[in-house]
Amino acid sequence: MSAKLQPAARVSNRRQDVWSIINEAAAASPKQPIVNMGQGFFGYNPPDFILNAAKGALDRVECNQYSPTKGRPRLKKAISDAYAPHWGRKLDPETEITITTGANEGMLSAFMAFIEPGDEVIVFEPFFDQYISNIEMPGGKIVYVPMHPPEEGGFKTLSAAEWTIDFAELERAITPRTKMLVLNTPHNPVGKVYSREELVKIADLCLKHQIIILSDEVYDRLFYVPFTRIATLSPEVEKITITVGSAGKNFYATGWRVGWLMGPPDLIQYVSAAHTRICYSSVSPLQEACAIGFEQAEAEGFWDTCITDMRSKMTLFNSIWDELGLPYSEPEGGYFVMANFSKVELPADYPFPAHVAERPRDFQLAWFLIQELGVAAIPPSEFYTDANAHIVEDYLRFAVCKPDEVLEDAKERLRGLKKYIKN
Amino acid sequence: MSAKLQPAARVSNRRQDVWSIINEAAAASPKQPIVNMGQGFFGYNPPDFILNAAKGALDRVECNQYSPTKGRPRLKKAISDAYAPHWGRKLDPETEITITTGANEGMLSAFMAFIEPGDEVIVFEPFFDQYISNIEMPGGKIVYVPMHPPEEGGFKTLSAAEWTIDFAELERAITPRTKMLVLNTPHNPVGKVYSREELVKIADLCLKHQIIILSDEVYDRLFYVPFTRIATLSPEVEKITITVGSAGKNFYATGWRVGWLMGPPDLIQYVSAAHTRICYSSVSPLQEACAIGFEQAEAEGFWDTCITDMRSKMTLFNSIWDELGLPYSEPEGGYFVMANFSKVELPADYPFPAHVAERPRDFQLAWFLIQELGVAAIPPSEFYTDANAHIVEDYLRFAVCKPDEVLEDAKERLRGLKKYIKN
Ligand SMILES: Cc1ncc(COP(=O)(O)O)c(C=O)c1O
Ligand SMILES: Cc1ncc(COP(=O)(O)O)c(C=O)c1O
Repeated sequence: MSAKLQPAARVSNRRQDVWSIINEAAAASPKQPIVNMGQGFFGYNPPDFILNAAKGALDRVECNQYSPTKGRPRLKKAISDAYAPHWGRKLDPETEITITTGANEGMLSAFMAFIEPGDEVIVFEPFFDQYISNIEMPGGKIVYVPMHPPEEGGFKTLSAAEWTIDFAELERAITPRTKMLVLNTPHNPVGKVYSREELVKIADLCLKHQIIILSDEVYDRLFYVPFTRIATLSPEVEKITITVGSAGKNFYATGWRVGWLMGPPDLIQYVSAAHTRICYSSVSPLQEACAIGFEQAEAEGFWDTCITDMRSKMTLFNSIWDELGLPYSEPEGGYFVMANFSKVELPADYPFPAHVAERPRDFQLAWFLIQELGVAAIPPSEFYTDANAHIVEDYLRFAVCKPDEVLEDAKERLRGLKKYIKN
Repeated sequence: MSAKLQPAARVSNRRQDVWSIINEAAAASPKQPIVNMGQGFFGYNPPDFILNAAKGALDRVECNQYSPTKGRPRLKKAISDAYAPHWGRKLDPETEITITTGANEGMLSAFMAFIEPGDEVIVFEPFFDQYISNIEMPGGKIVYVPMHPPEEGGFKTLSAAEWTIDFAELERAITPRTKMLVLNTPHNPVGKVYSREELVKIADLCLKHQIIILSDEVYDRLFYVPFTRIATLSPEVEKITITVGSAGKNFYATGWRVGWLMGPPDLIQYVSAAHTRICYSSVSPLQEACAIGFEQAEAEGFWDTCITDMRSKMTLFNSIWDELGLPYSEPEGGYFVMANFSKVELPADYPFPAHVAERPRDFQLAWFLIQELGVAAIPPSEFYTDANAHIVEDYLRFAVCKPDEVLEDAKERLRGLKKYIKN
């Protein structure tokens, strides 16, 4: 290819990402069809009242055409109403809420809105991998702060709350160029719900240094312990916080690509401006369906069902770890569970392909599970920098947002691990 | 607001854009409800076979969850099949086609994939306004080359073909840093379909200087004269060309946000990589609906209907200009028509608001039409740089993709112009 046709640095020279390694492994596995607990998509449909709303929207001319760039007024109002009990007040739908193409493009819009080349963004490890490219696109520099798993995590099942931040470490990461901090609660992949005390400490640091908090709360309807939203700590914190939501996660519809950002008008207006330049506007009929979803969810008892159903899936699936004697982090929220495989001994001569052999042990664990048992999970060291990858090299992340039969099938297959477990 | 919370330059300090000026004027107009021929969205629904496909997709679990980042295999295959007659071969769905969140985010992905800060992109004026921010986001520098309207455009209705490029001017715009050239055919707002001869000249220059051609062909199913796709001129041109398509435009569904880019694997792979980092993946159930749309469109006679219907709308609406004695550019493609108002005399003392009074005459024309007649159209000088804005200060752009009754209503209102026309 002619030198003049070369791609930009931002898209070239990346090592193979975890998704393609896992997909490739899955395709090559002799255990077809494999049970895929890797990617966090639902194995079942949104509830009927939301699907019917989407079908109804498709019959309406205005729901098939461009929506306002900031989102459909009906959806913004429905979000304002639905969040009011959690916020303690109604957000202004016109100025404090903006609709995006999934949480993902929403977060990119936030970085595009505030990051100038060289600005720093604090990200906790493990991180949702899209943060990284989204911060790099506007030229941001990422400063990593690790979450530390409990020391006894290798031999004892403990709450995901035991993954902690060292606040002195966090404060040392702040410099005059720190522009934003990304928080994720309930957390993917750890399953931690940050406590109010932890949030107060983070917020105080951000207030002191005037750092914008981007709080990724896409799993905000899936919590099994009390859940605090950092924006609601005080009016001062609210002023520096942008909160991220996702219809994909709220309504079991990850493929719908509807998300929203909430925050003070001073911040939201620029996020909207960036979103307009990225996607112009977001998908209209599904925005309308989400509006109706929010309007009816409470009366349908849907939010309670979300929690009850996912908790019962957690219990159903995680019993396999107790059975096998493998410890895990008991999730406080979300739909992922991190199991610890330090007791699993991989055959010394196992033929891992080079690009797996050279990665941390969790990649080898994931490869082995796919090939030998036909169960796909995600190696979480992908969500750490190389320097910190060792922290999670014994863990694998499983998504439990799958039908119960699938979870049963996975458990049955995982029983095949027994012979590799040393005690 | 604290200095540390300031937005990035890319989203701050922009003058009011044409869409908000027109919307504000529309809201303030005494002629409610106004007839909106401003923005290019359809005033009617996609055909039933496509709506039904969307509803069917909503019932399928996998159609509500994340699609592969490069798009649903069924859609890529359907596009490959549907374009084969125009391309003279089937594009490889895996490597030569990638799905994006509307043409808009597709083009942003292309710029993100290839533009390094300081790289130059040639854009013809008038341009689709999103190009500008999309090129600026990765740090590209825009080099403008104007399309020249016919000299007699003020007093004679002529084909949109008469808007021409000065090829010497184009060649002078090329520098060693020219990385891409953006072409748009059928053209918004001019309605021109570039002739094969013009495309050959553009392609030759791009081949000579190894410039990537981004050919925005979103109106590719709406042409009233022979339509050539620049990628099909020769295998050499194909190698440097990325072609852009839009389900929004093809299927009367601008709110669905499904688009695609087609081109050689060497280029498409980087566009896909950028798209993954921007939006992750695009809306699943509507991708599936578009796949079915492409599979069935030919048998449904849909592509022929598109052309017949839009031509008849053009004829229906444009008769008003003949009646009024105002010239226009006879469109060769697309759904916009540019009418020339040089013969219209605006009252000398008309109270234009300051932000309209300071813009070129077409903004005043647009404001006047909205206030006095209740018809909204778009002032095309917004799609020119300040230096060249005067070129179109007598034109307004009307979108005719509206129901016939709406077009009749618009015509009736436009008859109110008679008393302002000098001959
Ligand atoms: C923590 C976190 N943030 C954001 C997202 C993206 O959400 P969306 O699908 O709405 O773009 C995900 C999806 O997995 C996630 O886990
Ligand atoms: C020339 C041109 N390109 C691209 C687009 C955007 O298309 P989409 O709605 O698929 O993003 C438009 C929409 O008006 C357009 O006119």
